Amino acid sequence: MKRRVYLDNAATTPIDSGVLETMLPFLTQFYGNPSSTHEEGRIVRAAVEKSRRLISKMIGAGNLEVFFTSGGTEANNTILKGAVRDLGVRRILISTIEHACVKNASLSLERDCQIELDFIKVNTEGTLDLLHLENLLSSSDLKTLVSVMHSNNEIGTMQDLEQISALCKKYQALFHTDTVQTFGYYPTPVNRFPIDFMSGSAHKLHGPKGIGFMYVNKSLHIHPLIDGGGQERLLRSGTENVAGIVGFGKAAELFQENGSSYLQQIQDLKKYFAGQLKEKFGNKVSFNGSLENSHAKVLSVNFDIPIANDMFLFRLDLEGIAVSGGSACSSGANKASAVLQAIALPNHLKTVRFSFSHSNTIEELDYTIAVIQKIID
Amino acid sequence: MKRRVYLDNAATTPIDSGVLETMLPFLTQFYGNPSSTHEEGRIVRAAVEKSRRLISKMIGAGNLEVFFTSGGTEANNTILKGAVRDLGVRRILISTIEHACVKNASLSLERDCQIELDFIKVNTEGTLDLLHLENLLSSSDLKTLVSVMHSNNEIGTMQDLEQISALCKKYQALFHTDTVQTFGYYPTPVNRFPIDFMSGSAHKLHGPKGIGFMYVNKSLHIHPLIDGGGQERLLRSGTENVAGIVGFGKAAELFQENGSSYLQQIQDLKKYFAGQLKEKFGNKVSFNGSLENSHAKVLSVNFDIPIANDMFLFRLDLEGIAVSGGSACSSGANKASAVLQAIALPNHLKTVRFSFSHSNTIEELDYTIAVIQKIID
Repeated sequence: MKRRVYLDNAATTPIDSGVLETMLPFLTQFYGNPSSTHEEGRIVRAAVEKSRRLISKMIGAGNLEVFFTSGGTEANNTILKGAVRDLGVRRILISTIEHACVKNASLSLERDCQIELDFIKVNTEGTLDLLHLENLLSSSDLKTLVSVMHSNNEIGTMQDLEQISALCKKYQALFHTDTVQTFGYYPTPVNRFPIDFMSGSAHKLHGPKGIGFMYVNKSLHIHPLIDGGGQERLLRSGTENVAGIVGFGKAAELFQENGSSYLQQIQDLKKYFAGQLKEKFGNKVSFNGSLENSHAKVLSVNFDIPIANDMFLFRLDLEGIAVSGGSACSSGANKASAVLQAIALPNHLKTVRFSFSHSNTIEELDYTIAVIQKIID
Repeated sequence: MKRRVYLDNAATTPIDSGVLETMLPFLTQFYGNPSSTHEEGRIVRAAVEKSRRLISKMIGAGNLEVFFTSGGTEANNTILKGAVRDLGVRRILISTIEHACVKNASLSLERDCQIELDFIKVNTEGTLDLLHLENLLSSSDLKTLVSVMHSNNEIGTMQDLEQISALCKKYQALFHTDTVQTFGYYPTPVNRFPIDFMSGSAHKLHGPKGIGFMYVNKSLHIHPLIDGGGQERLLRSGTENVAGIVGFGKAAELFQENGSSYLQQIQDLKKYFAGQLKEKFGNKVSFNGSLENSHAKVLSVNFDIPIANDMFLFRLDLEGIAVSGGSACSSGANKASAVLQAIALPNHLKTVRFSFSHSNTIEELDYTIAVIQKIID
């Protein structure tokens, strides 16, 4: 069998074997509907609530503030649309490098609900311009929601949630942060400073696809995006994806226990890889975002080489290396990344996102460097 | 280990072992993101599209008309809300026995979008009053969507989709049918007569929870309920629940191949059980819906006995029998069922929904009869 090196862990991660083991009974003998009152129902209800406790604890929230969704995208849509529908929000501020789901949900709200939508600038490292945020916040009396992701999915830049939160509080704006990339990897405590809404996803931390959560501060009451039988305490109807929820809880638990060790391993891999790239390719490579202030998982590399970007990715793939041009979330669309445009990256550079997990090895990175060398030569 | 007899297959079904076997590789080695263009991505993309073809074929739709969602509830919400937002629908007609997700999504639209919402009567067997539907359709010039479920989840009554569809066509109304209970069990061909929208769910036919589909006729263009990266051809964003989709496809395939044999087995079980109930308990039992014109899966039984309904269910559960009082979808809420009210059931009767799968046995039903006998005595 052909060798594969998977360096696209910001797109999705393999399910941890311990997570799968925890899920399996809920794909076999524990098949009840959590809304059923009989034993088959009660067993799975208990498992769902255990997962909720694990995730709540991890973010410093109450159990009643965490709701399961089908993923981060649904969570973000529920929050943004709920804030406009039910909380009087008439203006949304998002960064110029937000994920497509926050951006497109905001654009839908602009189209359908005539909200005002403004974009907060970032610098060339992707760091939010706090002065611009404050200018925007102070320039309008409209009820405002600020939505800024904790770490950018394409270039890894981390934002200072505490400072953003303080500005939001100062101007009575609501604050939402998408922690899809950071949940489990970095602390995202909602009890340390004011966060009104938060969202996360299991498949970025070695849990299953198709399950996410949203945190809604208990003082805020929004209607569901998905109406129905009243599951998730009326905020998200539909029979619960029990195996997904159980797997998500286990993934959170594993990161609660081992997250700092995983993070150190990833950090070491990233540092080594960045060093090797510089050593072998010198000025032909540069990095997006600040190496220090970005997610350990993500290294966004610009190659100044005379080969088309899709051909470069294709060659890497042929040699067994899975990486991404921008993010995977744009569903195969091969257009210029909005994030890279926002940080004013010169057009001629070929950008590749390498993203790591704790199961990657130095040897895999050496192989990757050798393949890049071969392609460039 | 204590004996259990699961007769709540309208709430949810155990995952078929063949379905699980098909899913497992997508929970282990095939972990890519279907939006990724590398090999890991392409493998799972192919699997997602294979599932889409299996489901499209089963309902007689084109591949481009079937979209995966997190379940039937999300599908119904997307359809109803999209029809109002994007297709000019200003009036929704639903039966008095629709599922909570259709009813509550319609109520949300009445609240948020000021649509007109009217209820189509059913007779005491739960069959739609076609005359009333026609009166409603002819009485208004507002653009109308009719939403009627194929088979009711609580009492099993099947509606005549062809006749309803013909009336909708006559009055230029859009027609949506929720086939969550019937998909796979009964034909639901969108190419035989006009159906604009349809929805289904995997976990009712021995597939996994957390995955469903919607059919949207190719002539109709709605915006997504969940905005984002543009997955599912822009209509449903969010990283795909690959294992769920693959499992759904396999469940559909198994029902495509064996559905009529499964249905015959279920029909035989239901007939036997209804006969035994009548034989043992005579006038103390009656059935909701017509025995002939209802889903083979569902037998809704009224007991005229001096014991509280929840106590009756509790005793059955203690003796190992999992059944439901109404539906499981009302999230443990122990209030009078809207469906049973709609068919004008006398209050003093204790209603139990027995629902079967092809893996139930005559012996399990005999045991159940014996337990009921014991409780009543």
